[in-house]
Amino acid sequence: MTHKIAVLPGDGIGPEITEQAVRVLTALGLDLDLQTAPVGGAAYEVQEHPLPASTLELAKGSAAILFGAVGDWKYDSLPRELRPEQAILGLRKALGLFANLRPAILYPQLANASSLKPEVVSGLDILIVRELTGDIYFGQPRGVRQLDDGPFKGERQGFDTMHYAEPEIRRIAHVAFQAAQKRGKRLCSVDKANVLETSQFWRDIMIAVAGEYPDVELSHMYVDNAAMQLVRAPKEFDVIVTGNLFGDILSDEAAMLTGSIGMLPSASLNASNQGLYEPSHGSAPDIAGKNLANPLATILSAAMLLRYSLNEAGQADRIEAAVQAVLERGLRTADLYESGTTKVSTTEMGDAVLKALK
Amino acid sequence: MTHKIAVLPGDGIGPEITEQAVRVLTALGLDLDLQTAPVGGAAYEVQEHPLPASTLELAKGSAAILFGAVGDWKYDSLPRELRPEQAILGLRKALGLFANLRPAILYPQLANASSLKPEVVSGLDILIVRELTGDIYFGQPRGVRQLDDGPFKGERQGFDTMHYAEPEIRRIAHVAFQAAQKRGKRLCSVDKANVLETSQFWRDIMIAVAGEYPDVELSHMYVDNAAMQLVRAPKEFDVIVTGNLFGDILSDEAAMLTGSIGMLPSASLNASNQGLYEPSHGSAPDIAGKNLANPLATILSAAMLLRYSLNEAGQADRIEAAVQAVLERGLRTADLYESGTTKVSTTEMGDAVLKALK
Ligand SMILES: CC(C)[C@H](C(=O)O)[C@@H](O)C(=O)O
Ligand SMILES: CC(C)[C@H](C(=O)O)[C@@H](O)C(=O)O
Repeated sequence: MTHKIAVLPGDGIGPEITEQAVRVLTALGLDLDLQTAPVGGAAYEVQEHPLPASTLELAKGSAAILFGAVGDWKYDSLPRELRPEQAILGLRKALGLFANLRPAILYPQLANASSLKPEVVSGLDILIVRELTGDIYFGQPRGVRQLDDGPFKGERQGFDTMHYAEPEIRRIAHVAFQAAQKRGKRLCSVDKANVLETSQFWRDIMIAVAGEYPDVELSHMYVDNAAMQLVRAPKEFDVIVTGNLFGDILSDEAAMLTGSIGMLPSASLNASNQGLYEPSHGSAPDIAGKNLANPLATILSAAMLLRYSLNEAGQADRIEAAVQAVLERGLRTADLYESGTTKVSTTEMGDAVLKALK
Repeated sequence: MTHKIAVLPGDGIGPEITEQAVRVLTALGLDLDLQTAPVGGAAYEVQEHPLPASTLELAKGSAAILFGAVGDWKYDSLPRELRPEQAILGLRKALGLFANLRPAILYPQLANASSLKPEVVSGLDILIVRELTGDIYFGQPRGVRQLDDGPFKGERQGFDTMHYAEPEIRRIAHVAFQAAQKRGKRLCSVDKANVLETSQFWRDIMIAVAGEYPDVELSHMYVDNAAMQLVRAPKEFDVIVTGNLFGDILSDEAAMLTGSIGMLPSASLNASNQGLYEPSHGSAPDIAGKNLANPLATILSAAMLLRYSLNEAGQADRIEAAVQAVLERGLRTADLYESGTTKVSTTEMGDAVLKALK
């Protein structure tokens, strides 16, 4: 059976990093049909929209999407609905990609890269499960209105709506509990239940779902405390589950703890395991086209693609082992270079991973 | 003129740390009228409410409030409106304490306490200005409802409303710009304008107010990126201004970067400089009553009280210099003890600060 994969390189370093991941995917000897389409600013340039209908159709009809990165300062003055980031929000919504898996892993070889003390982060391996299609990201009503009573009568007010329905919380809870079952069996649900109704409801449903997973230990933490504990003792976490907004903040904070965000992949899945796979870092327009970018987060995203959407865990293992091997050999792109290691370019890093594939 | 000050010790370590701050305030030779009242769980025990009317009246009629800490696990099962934290939300709202000033300072003597590498955080001195009476904290409507259409028809949904009116944004902007003028003249406004209408509106108003402060350099950062940059290179910030929810998360993250949250005071001010002053840390019920807690954050909060509500900058300087002096002498409570320093109790630390007052 041929697996159709949409390749959406996007902006900045997107094209050069996805190119390396495509080389790796192609080398595995699987029956893959890879089709490329523009997205983000690159799509806006040719079709006046960051997520053209043809790109969306390709994505919908594929088993998985390999996504590079989108965004560039030069689009900052466009109206919001035409900015590159809207492509990613549009894909998540249109495909129902509600489950975002964001591992924060610090490879022992890279422990120096972190701004934290090595003993605090070396060997870090936590998984953040972020809900990705609900919350205040898409909630209606939202906008700017003129107030017609209250203390600010006659004034303008910006507003948004945060909300979660029970089935939305249940399905992300199941993803998170099942992920925890395959790991350390500890799940920490992060909310702001001391202030928000949405959070109290979220917490109640998490507790209800926990009954189906007696082997997983569920705990709860307020988001402000979670932001602190990630800095203080990140290794105390196993799996974290949280809503879209808090997940946006905490998954980036956790990624930066490793100091090696160029290494971190992500997966965004829907109920049928169709998924979008992208590096956790951005489009880095300042180094685009210079053959400097680290392609490993995208290559590891391709590994996640094989594991979650194509059910090819063995092939995913092959890629992950190859990445480990090149790190072990001391190869580093510029972002992670330190004395005693060997500096390589984007394409040389791709070459090395290909060579290391067993 | 006599200055009336409400002392609200609260729960856990609250009473023992405020006691030391009261000793320091009393030793200054100012004309102060200090009156104590229960708050939080301690108030619930005696008056069945975390913020009894008599406590609220005392607070309203005082120039400033010295607040300890509230909260204990034993109140977790109370209905939300009776839990200790509601006292602090109630005081903020009733007194209109919209401007929360949260310094994150790492004293050079304590650089080892941080989980970050000393070179990343030593000498850290940033100020977070958090809006404290608006945003999703108090927005209506909120609750749990049954949906009567849409994809989740018939299901329950938890919901909250985020909003900011233009005058709310303007007044916190002025506080932040003026704080920046007295410091490094760089202000970073944190929002999520790529997703939220409230944030885009916030950003537009910040830009409008910036016109009145040509000497301050205004920048903007998304909250996810801010959570990352605080970990990567916190010393690159000077003053951060943000909304209530993002400020809750980022000010705690920034505090934990220092590793010495027992040292960090905070101020919450209204338009007439009436203010509530409290340590940034919690009530720590596990060490309550053991004479172990660090009173310095509360003593430094008393210094902020003198500076902002009583206009006694010279007295504030005296207290801050005394705290510096005891650190320099190597005195440490248990939270910051390391070999080569001298471990002292809560009361001994209070004694030392009193002695060091010039
Ligand atoms: C680009 C932006 C809309 C997006 C988000 O906030 O979800 C990004 O920060 C992410 O985390 O993927
Ligand atoms: C106790 C809680 C309601 C409060 C808040 O979220 O504002 C606290 O976390 C704080 O930051 O003072």
